[in-house]
Amino acid sequence: MIIEPKILKGFRDALPDSERRRRDLIYTLEMQFRSFGFEPIDTPVLEYTEVLLGKGSGETDKQIYRFTDNGGRDVAMRFDLTVPFARYMAGHLNELYEPFKRYHIDKVWRGENTQKGRYREFYQCDFDIVGVDSSSADFEILLMIHESLQAIGIDRITISVSHRGMFNAFLETVGVTCQKDEILRIVDKLSKIGQEQVIEQLSAVTNTEKARKILSFITKKESNEATYQNMIDLIGSEGEAALRLKEVFALIQSLGLSERFVIDPSITRGLDYYTGIVYETILEDDPSIGSICSGGRYNDLASLYTKRSLPGVGASIGLDRLLSALEERQETVPSADVLIFCLDESLIHRYHSCARELRAAGLKTEVYPMKKKLNAQFKYAERKGFPYGVFIGETEAEHGEVTLKDLDRRQEYQHITTQEAIELIRSGKER
Amino acid sequence: MIIEPKILKGFRDALPDSERRRRDLIYTLEMQFRSFGFEPIDTPVLEYTEVLLGKGSGETDKQIYRFTDNGGRDVAMRFDLTVPFARYMAGHLNELYEPFKRYHIDKVWRGENTQKGRYREFYQCDFDIVGVDSSSADFEILLMIHESLQAIGIDRITISVSHRGMFNAFLETVGVTCQKDEILRIVDKLSKIGQEQVIEQLSAVTNTEKARKILSFITKKESNEATYQNMIDLIGSEGEAALRLKEVFALIQSLGLSERFVIDPSITRGLDYYTGIVYETILEDDPSIGSICSGGRYNDLASLYTKRSLPGVGASIGLDRLLSALEERQETVPSADVLIFCLDESLIHRYHSCARELRAAGLKTEVYPMKKKLNAQFKYAERKGFPYGVFIGETEAEHGEVTLKDLDRRQEYQHITTQEAIELIRSGKER
Repeated sequence: MIIEPKILKGFRDALPDSERRRRDLIYTLEMQFRSFGFEPIDTPVLEYTEVLLGKGSGETDKQIYRFTDNGGRDVAMRFDLTVPFARYMAGHLNELYEPFKRYHIDKVWRGENTQKGRYREFYQCDFDIVGVDSSSADFEILLMIHESLQAIGIDRITISVSHRGMFNAFLETVGVTCQKDEILRIVDKLSKIGQEQVIEQLSAVTNTEKARKILSFITKKESNEATYQNMIDLIGSEGEAALRLKEVFALIQSLGLSERFVIDPSITRGLDYYTGIVYETILEDDPSIGSICSGGRYNDLASLYTKRSLPGVGASIGLDRLLSALEERQETVPSADVLIFCLDESLIHRYHSCARELRAAGLKTEVYPMKKKLNAQFKYAERKGFPYGVFIGETEAEHGEVTLKDLDRRQEYQHITTQEAIELIRSGKER
Repeated sequence: MIIEPKILKGFRDALPDSERRRRDLIYTLEMQFRSFGFEPIDTPVLEYTEVLLGKGSGETDKQIYRFTDNGGRDVAMRFDLTVPFARYMAGHLNELYEPFKRYHIDKVWRGENTQKGRYREFYQCDFDIVGVDSSSADFEILLMIHESLQAIGIDRITISVSHRGMFNAFLETVGVTCQKDEILRIVDKLSKIGQEQVIEQLSAVTNTEKARKILSFITKKESNEATYQNMIDLIGSEGEAALRLKEVFALIQSLGLSERFVIDPSITRGLDYYTGIVYETILEDDPSIGSICSGGRYNDLASLYTKRSLPGVGASIGLDRLLSALEERQETVPSADVLIFCLDESLIHRYHSCARELRAAGLKTEVYPMKKKLNAQFKYAERKGFPYGVFIGETEAEHGEVTLKDLDRRQEYQHITTQEAIELIRSGKER
């Protein structure tokens, strides 16, 4: 009669430590986004399939969780946060304002092949500025990527930036008119598969001469200036797209951030969607995990749902990648500071009132909720990693005192006041 | 060719102001929960239908979003956070520890009748202590309800508490052996439908004499002591259940919280699930919205999925009700503190570096991202409710100064340093 407590393939539970990490990470990012005036929005998990799929791409079609609801509607679970955002902008044009700066951090679902180590339920973290096409907005997104990662303790990053308009202008100069999507996809793989493979694959799509020219265009030079110069040399002129990229890099330099930003013409972000600058972010200490934050400028967010043109620029943080990178670097923080041991059931009211004092002083405090052997209580304290234990027995209770144990350092402070305990814990936390 | 950007009936988007409120509320609650050592967990939105429905109740069955996934599995979206928690505990017994204290705040889905003003996608906010059956744990959940609501600015509450074991003992004394669920449901409605209706409905289920006895049992007296005395008088003895309730109220009194807690024997929480204390929370200034936080003790959380007995106690906050109650009380806080106006495109780097300084000082700061008529920029500032504007024109730029405008009070501070602006904004925020 027992039902096996199994979960679906490609889905997972989050145990407390890892969920705490995720929620803390999300909160830190949120506070950064808000410090730039970005606002949170929310959209339903379920939408009309017709709305989510739009024109529909074969790939997404197969992966989407789609069904008929009890009212006979053809519905689906969202597979990203971009399509719902486009629908949202189109549906609330009269209630919103432009520029509109939003972030959205939540789960999406795709029935992907789990053999690749991918999950069918995962987080996305998107932020965009919509309704404006300017170098200031382009730069702001790049700055926000930089500041957000810094806020979570990741300093050593490289943000590689290019401009899709420049790449298009270059392809026109070279005389490539078809198979552009395929070329974009190959070019984008340069850092993964290397020059030779790229030449080979490009030659198969165009010809060897054009392939060599493309490789020359997408190859980084010794400095941003040199890369830029090479790009406009190969395009043949410094058009609007080039000037935009130059402006953005001038802002990067003014703000003293040149060290972190690189012009890399091999960045294309594959998708048809992007029209302006595009970028990727690599952890210098862990480049193999790939880009942890990517995005770019598009000239029309919501053309499927409205005639109003909505240019924008945005980025998406790979929360799961970021979490696993952080997990390797950071120690697990204990879930609470203090455990108040239960020595005597008649003193339970003392345990709770002491806990209340500690909490009021900003210390996370648990009361062990029943009389059990001390051994079991110490085991619990160890399992949850409490750095401190508070003991109130008959004698302590009589004198309104406590005994504090530093559980990590195995030090004991007998018969002190609650206030003294608070001070000791605070100074211990600062070490 | 335009797709109508419509959303499903019973679902809704959250505009920025309301989503910000919700996220802030959730964060404040989380920090309270964590201060008690509660930890967050997460479970998948989709589960095997068999796992979610368990023995299945007709009601849930009809409302659940259920379908066959691409792999032919019978799956469903979670309709609450309790069933997944039970499955989670059973599935992770070896990785977890007891007492286990978790909270979970997230969306659930039910295809309910939307005519009642209900939504098909809504939030639940649950917290539980599992693996212990003690008055200390019972009290801790009650304390946490009290402290959490206080943390979000809600002081004037009444938490009504009863004990299902006492009610059962009473029914035994009276000789009621069948239709207990129906009686529980009627009793629970006392505050809504009044004594006469209760008598009438109870009489229909049992008989008039028993109905009168039941009414006498569930009627509150002039004090908690008197209510308690009446209850044990009618039961005929002070059993284990009564002693537990007494212990819990002794703790409430020790911590000086008597004013907020009432023994109310008409509270039963209908569900079969509860076996110990049960409670509801009413806003004294807004009792009509019903209980904003309810729960109780159960003697076995996960009997469907494991033979291990998991007694627990928990509560659930009605986030949506709470949000609408708060919305009426609190003013909307602006999304950011300062807007830096764009006066001159050649100074955009100055706008961004000034914004960075302000952010480093803890002020949420937006840069207007393009040159537009001042009128449009002022309109934007008004729409988003910025209290302050910063202006940097040629003269200010030359002297490394700014002009600050207090947009609410229409005051201007010309040619001051960024540091002076920061001080002015900070002192303005304190008012």
